[in-house]
Amino acid sequence: MRTERDLLGSYQIDDDAYYGVHSARARENFPLSGRRLHPELVKALAMVKQAAARANRDAGLLPPEKAEAIEKACAEIAAGGFSDQFITDALQGGAGTSANMNANEVIANRAIELLGGKKGDYTLVHPIDDVNRSQSTNDVFPTAVRVAAIRMLKPVSEGFARLQTALQEKEEAFSCVLKIGRTELQDAVPITLGQEFGAWAQAVARDRWRLYKVEERLRQVNLGGTAVGTGLNAPRAYVFAAAEHLRELTGLGLARAEDPIDPTQNCDVFAEVSGLLKAAAVNLAKIAGDLRLLSSGPRAGFGEIHLPAMQAGSSIMPGKVNPVIPEAVTQAAYQIMADDLAVTLAAQAGNLELNAFLPLIAKNLLEMLDLMRQAVFIFTKKCVAGIEPDRARCAALAEQSPSLAAALIDHIGYDAASRIAKDCLHTGKTVRQALLEDGRFTPEEIDRLLDPIAMTSGRG
Amino acid sequence: MRTERDLLGSYQIDDDAYYGVHSARARENFPLSGRRLHPELVKALAMVKQAAARANRDAGLLPPEKAEAIEKACAEIAAGGFSDQFITDALQGGAGTSANMNANEVIANRAIELLGGKKGDYTLVHPIDDVNRSQSTNDVFPTAVRVAAIRMLKPVSEGFARLQTALQEKEEAFSCVLKIGRTELQDAVPITLGQEFGAWAQAVARDRWRLYKVEERLRQVNLGGTAVGTGLNAPRAYVFAAAEHLRELTGLGLARAEDPIDPTQNCDVFAEVSGLLKAAAVNLAKIAGDLRLLSSGPRAGFGEIHLPAMQAGSSIMPGKVNPVIPEAVTQAAYQIMADDLAVTLAAQAGNLELNAFLPLIAKNLLEMLDLMRQAVFIFTKKCVAGIEPDRARCAALAEQSPSLAAALIDHIGYDAASRIAKDCLHTGKTVRQALLEDGRFTPEEIDRLLDPIAMTSGRG
Amino acid sequence: MRTERDLLGSYQIDDDAYYGVHSARARENFPLSGRRLHPELVKALAMVKQAAARANRDAGLLPPEKAEAIEKACAEIAAGGFSDQFITDALQGGAGTSANMNANEVIANRAIELLGGKKGDYTLVHPIDDVNRSQSTNDVFPTAVRVAAIRMLKPVSEGFARLQTALQEKEEAFSCVLKIGRTELQDAVPITLGQEFGAWAQAVARDRWRLYKVEERLRQVNLGGTAVGTGLNAPRAYVFAAAEHLRELTGLGLARAEDPIDPTQNCDVFAEVSGLLKAAAVNLAKIAGDLRLLSSGPRAGFGEIHLPAMQAGSSIMPGKVNPVIPEAVTQAAYQIMADDLAVTLAAQAGNLELNAFLPLIAKNLLEMLDLMRQAVFIFTKKCVAGIEPDRARCAALAEQSPSLAAALIDHIGYDAASRIAKDCLHTGKTVRQALLEDGRFTPEEIDRLLDPIAMTSGRG
Amino acid sequence: MRTERDLLGSYQIDDDAYYGVHSARARENFPLSGRRLHPELVKALAMVKQAAARANRDAGLLPPEKAEAIEKACAEIAAGGFSDQFITDALQGGAGTSANMNANEVIANRAIELLGGKKGDYTLVHPIDDVNRSQSTNDVFPTAVRVAAIRMLKPVSEGFARLQTALQEKEEAFSCVLKIGRTELQDAVPITLGQEFGAWAQAVARDRWRLYKVEERLRQVNLGGTAVGTGLNAPRAYVFAAAEHLRELTGLGLARAEDPIDPTQNCDVFAEVSGLLKAAAVNLAKIAGDLRLLSSGPRAGFGEIHLPAMQAGSSIMPGKVNPVIPEAVTQAAYQIMADDLAVTLAAQAGNLELNAFLPLIAKNLLEMLDLMRQAVFIFTKKCVAGIEPDRARCAALAEQSPSLAAALIDHIGYDAASRIAKDCLHTGKTVRQALLEDGRFTPEEIDRLLDPIAMTSGRG
Repeated sequence: MRTERDLLGSYQIDDDAYYGVHSARARENFPLSGRRLHPELVKALAMVKQAAARANRDAGLLPPEKAEAIEKACAEIAAGGFSDQFITDALQGGAGTSANMNANEVIANRAIELLGGKKGDYTLVHPIDDVNRSQSTNDVFPTAVRVAAIRMLKPVSEGFARLQTALQEKEEAFSCVLKIGRTELQDAVPITLGQEFGAWAQAVARDRWRLYKVEERLRQVNLGGTAVGTGLNAPRAYVFAAAEHLRELTGLGLARAEDPIDPTQNCDVFAEVSGLLKAAAVNLAKIAGDLRLLSSGPRAGFGEIHLPAMQAGSSIMPGKVNPVIPEAVTQAAYQIMADDLAVTLAAQAGNLELNAFLPLIAKNLLEMLDLMRQAVFIFTKKCVAGIEPDRARCAALAEQSPSLAAALIDHIGYDAASRIAKDCLHTGKTVRQALLEDGRFTPEEIDRLLDPIAMTSGRG
Repeated sequence: MRTERDLLGSYQIDDDAYYGVHSARARENFPLSGRRLHPELVKALAMVKQAAARANRDAGLLPPEKAEAIEKACAEIAAGGFSDQFITDALQGGAGTSANMNANEVIANRAIELLGGKKGDYTLVHPIDDVNRSQSTNDVFPTAVRVAAIRMLKPVSEGFARLQTALQEKEEAFSCVLKIGRTELQDAVPITLGQEFGAWAQAVARDRWRLYKVEERLRQVNLGGTAVGTGLNAPRAYVFAAAEHLRELTGLGLARAEDPIDPTQNCDVFAEVSGLLKAAAVNLAKIAGDLRLLSSGPRAGFGEIHLPAMQAGSSIMPGKVNPVIPEAVTQAAYQIMADDLAVTLAAQAGNLELNAFLPLIAKNLLEMLDLMRQAVFIFTKKCVAGIEPDRARCAALAEQSPSLAAALIDHIGYDAASRIAKDCLHTGKTVRQALLEDGRFTPEEIDRLLDPIAMTSGRG
Repeated sequence: MRTERDLLGSYQIDDDAYYGVHSARARENFPLSGRRLHPELVKALAMVKQAAARANRDAGLLPPEKAEAIEKACAEIAAGGFSDQFITDALQGGAGTSANMNANEVIANRAIELLGGKKGDYTLVHPIDDVNRSQSTNDVFPTAVRVAAIRMLKPVSEGFARLQTALQEKEEAFSCVLKIGRTELQDAVPITLGQEFGAWAQAVARDRWRLYKVEERLRQVNLGGTAVGTGLNAPRAYVFAAAEHLRELTGLGLARAEDPIDPTQNCDVFAEVSGLLKAAAVNLAKIAGDLRLLSSGPRAGFGEIHLPAMQAGSSIMPGKVNPVIPEAVTQAAYQIMADDLAVTLAAQAGNLELNAFLPLIAKNLLEMLDLMRQAVFIFTKKCVAGIEPDRARCAALAEQSPSLAAALIDHIGYDAASRIAKDCLHTGKTVRQALLEDGRFTPEEIDRLLDPIAMTSGRG
Repeated sequence: MRTERDLLGSYQIDDDAYYGVHSARARENFPLSGRRLHPELVKALAMVKQAAARANRDAGLLPPEKAEAIEKACAEIAAGGFSDQFITDALQGGAGTSANMNANEVIANRAIELLGGKKGDYTLVHPIDDVNRSQSTNDVFPTAVRVAAIRMLKPVSEGFARLQTALQEKEEAFSCVLKIGRTELQDAVPITLGQEFGAWAQAVARDRWRLYKVEERLRQVNLGGTAVGTGLNAPRAYVFAAAEHLRELTGLGLARAEDPIDPTQNCDVFAEVSGLLKAAAVNLAKIAGDLRLLSSGPRAGFGEIHLPAMQAGSSIMPGKVNPVIPEAVTQAAYQIMADDLAVTLAAQAGNLELNAFLPLIAKNLLEMLDLMRQAVFIFTKKCVAGIEPDRARCAALAEQSPSLAAALIDHIGYDAASRIAKDCLHTGKTVRQALLEDGRFTPEEIDRLLDPIAMTSGRG
């Protein structure tokens, strides 16, 4: 055990621990969500700290060997090391101060170790005076959240691209599977199964594009702004170098915010990203719901498609296979919609120079990104890619719809068409049968009127 | 035109207007939602004002004839009069001050008129010194919101009772309509259509009970608490009389809050009521969704029930009849869920001695109650009451489900039952056919195993 | 009274009415929100119908004089005429069918009248066969919602531009008003009042940009897609002409969707727009909250700024002036966040070829746009533009903050600076006083260390 | 490695694993939230399984020694054992089937082991035929969620009781600390600090009561209903015994639902509980916000109370102590509001005989309960209990409020009082000073008019 001190007194820290008193207090203070800082946020914090150390060295604020040790420690953490030393709850008071302090302490102790010192000997490397040099939680933490979010957005956007491709492959494969369209869950006019997949692909393409574009909005970082964005304690030389180093280290197109006071306090950008993820969740829920409907059955449902069986479906109904992947995707979508509310609530509640609730935003935004990525992944791979149509059933149901009478409106008017449709409904005839009996048109004319290709391709 | 003055200067008021300068300023300041104070809130304000006037008279704070004129004006408004004189937007800043002032001014001017004076001659009856005597917006407005909410809750609760009855009538009428049950939209084991209606009736019964019980929570009013709940400027004699008179006038079981400071600032009770309306909306959305599914078709859907046709369904598909009432009910349910969020947001944002956002709560809560009442009304009358089963289709689908194999588990084990179910699925046989071919059981045994009554009544 | 007939039977319609049986049934079926179709939606419907009539004429599907009469009727409605004839509730089942039918009927009867006929004589102009020719609710209604939304977005975006300008004017005017910054509501390091307005202006600039850009997404319309987007019953010649005419008539950069099946069923674009309005609401709530804090007082609060007095603040506390405009803006922001939930719920619940809940989306989206426009308008004009600083109080509070010790970290380290800050806190000294007594620095050095310009301009 | 088989083929399972093929497939299928089934849900599942085993034994459906082994395995799990064997993600498709299967497999393998067999030898104890005997996921899982929720509700309710007590202790301790009341963040009339704590205590008392009462609603369980609530495969003897045994094992007042079909499909009860937790979150957010306001400063804020310092507040501003506990509580409250949305979304989306989204409900509801318990715990212990008033500042601010003029209304009328208040505002005088100069009242009368006791106790 080593003893560390802070403004509240002394605290016993385990000898092996790289974290220090500030982290330990925070762990004690916030036993809340049961989840620690997101690993990507930890990595992003390390990258920000590394960029700062490099800039401090450039500006002559840190001696080279101290800077080097700090940088090395940061690099190790950014590579996934010391993850067990980040002990603060994801949901914490203090606007991220505890997360920043945790990073400062772990980095300092690892740097001390690298310099041959003993953990806790902060005369060698000081968590605040050295590691946090020229920084404040209030620029470091928002910058790290942005870096983590951008890094996590990319695979989500790529996942949507793959989902789009999978849907488009089905669009092509099923382009000749004629089926009934349904509006308000009632039988409507024909459509092809390929067209259904095509419409979903269009929606997913928009998600991909939105998530690709919104990245830009996250690129403005306030590193260098320190406490309230005015840059107090951050010399100019440092400020410009820090943003530049961070850009290099992350490989992301980051830019120093024109007015760092703004991103220090305003969280609308996170609400925007979250809102776009919510819009994407809307599409996922819609498509998953459609797949559940189309695969309902096997006998007493729509039964037009078969989803790949992923597991036994029931502990009591043998042989039952359920649409478990769409069900999981729908739940992921709902969770994302709910997380969006958490982000919104936190974002609107900021006060003056800072938003104290940024940890809640970070927790929910990064969880949304994780969940979206995974949901899109299983949806693509375990569901969409393996869907097969039931061609016979599609054809049979398509023929029976009284709504085929729509094709007659231009020829006999709405009211007469309406009478034929009602007749079909009562007698059980198909529109084709009713027309044949009606005698108004020749069989050839009827074929032309009810030509499925024409009906589904706008050549009607 | 008459000239009125306030702290900001003079203002020209139309001679006919019963409202005055404070109302006019508010109308100008808050051109927001386009909707005025809810009519029930206006009536409730008038009742509160009448109770206060009576209590002021009792306490010797208002001369009898002045009190009488004020009371009469209040009674007229509570009966629906002068509704066009309440000109402030439902969504207003000031924690209800403008609503209260609007009431004060209309009452004063009507009382002046009743006393033979000329509108605007506030020496006869003063909007604040007389009508608002011993009161503050901060006790009047929250009290009025509670009174309005209780009065509007009752028909909602009664509406749920009627919906419950309608569902139970169908439960009985359809008790012998055997059909397939569906879990995860997949064919499962048999159930009766009556049992489905019965389960919905149970859910609705809970709504009825919850809304009936929660009324109690609204009964604690802070009238007499004035500005912050401490009762400054409200003499004891007045305070006790006011609550008593309000109880009499409204006929509701109101009680003076033990600690009027609490309901002056805390809005959790509104969030509670709103949350219960949201739970009721969950049930409405669930039932409406089920009805849309069961009535999907007519040919290519589940087609087990017919909803009453309420209007032509399509401008392009002749004869199409859509489930428009369940669709409307679902939308009402979604609107209510959204309104609940508005109530929640406003309720949590109160500061110290007052919640400045009570007007938003009032607007949404009272709109939710209106919408819920109407949605339940049309659901009962225009949909549930007229539902008819398609008995033949119910029977046909029930027979085909491979999940009937569930009935075999106790006799041949899960794995063997699973094989039979899979066989049915691939060959298109029914479980009955497969069992007959299998030869393991006699036809009589099979009849017993697959006895629908046993399967749906827990005697399986 | 005239008698009209539909699939359910006959119906008595008032002789004066331009609407017909379908509208009347819908009015009866959906007595829900108490609000009719949004006036802008009615106008947009009329424009869509006019474009369709023109295209039908081009394609030889409507005789010129009939087309002309229909067009004239549409133009009158688009100019605001006949608004009282649109009698269906904004919240309606049927995916907008009733709204479309209402438009068809009013247009038909007005066209009949223009042609010298008698209302109800649909042999002259038929609501469906003529006015709805080549159309379906399912392409007309979503197109109209998009047109209305784009038209309403523009003034919102312009409103944000004006708010941004007003904030920037204050940014400049208050650029020398030094004050204390606050993080987590605790005294932090100095900032200027101008910088605070500047940060708000940045946030508002993003809103303006987002709302300006998102318009693009709404421009893809599915007119010509008819029932499910496949264009059944819509001849090619018509389809291309219709979109073109609509572009001309509206003056908006509309385009025919590449795949009209997609916008017929997918509503993510509305969820996207709504989500961006929600992000804008986040900024409004944040800024309004800050203004309420900064103007809190007059004596026992922060008291750094004065908001313009808009009305008397209290019926019991004389002379009290409340921040009624920020309070109203916050409530509008909360309402918008709630409306966004309604849009989200409806958007995710679409089934297959159509989203039956589009009326709910339309209602909430258009109401959000109205409310946002008005909230931004009053915020700019009645609040931001008139804000005045209390320079003396700003200066006094700035001097007292123990957080000024932050400026010492680079010179004496965090721990020593911390001791000075704690000392100030306990003794009531300012940091300047403590430093003078400490003797470590000369008075000139202290002036330089605590130079407010340096502290707020990043030259610290 | 051992080989297990299911409907999809064979699967290699680690020899040490107690889980089997169904669990392993589910783990692979749902790599979603990164969190496993809630530990309390695992325990509840084990209790349900134990009750079922006992009932199966009673009904002669399981041989005693097999039943005993199963029961023992269940008891070990209910005591916290084998928690690492529950490998399925909390967020899973299949309505809880995977969770139930995971329980069946772990219990079976542990029972096999207890009987001296080798894991995977399901001839000894079969996960479905034996452990799941007479059960279905669809009655087991909803019952387990209810059991877990009831068990977790109790400490939450108790936590609110402790918070109430802590607030009441402060109410008493601070009953004589006179301070300014604030409405709409503007100086209003006096109140005592004790009264403020008292109002919060009242709100918390309601939460306690609500959460205590709502437990009743969770007590109706559908165990025995099997697949759709009709009890197929569950003999009567078993059904009655199962509910009885579960009541005994849990010690909770559980009851078999009158109509088990209802709780199999309807989730409104979870939405109700969640809605009440949301109402409680409203109170927490309100109180936490008030504490942040009252403790704002130390110099430039309200500064009327001191919160206990829990950790250093800033990495850049030495000596700064932030209200980290209220900030954390607010974030917990926001998270709970968001989780409530997830519960609502899932609850309303159920279809027919089952709600496939119950896993999402379980995940969010149980997380809400955890988070609420912890948030209330730290709020009570680390914040409320240690709050100290700044009596001098309270007194000073109270004296200065121009709103004290409210006390004059009854004596000189609203308009005259208003003039005095405005005069104070402009000149900086206190109301007392203004009155003394005014000469209208004697100093003794002024003392009586402005008597703080009278002003705060309703004796004004």
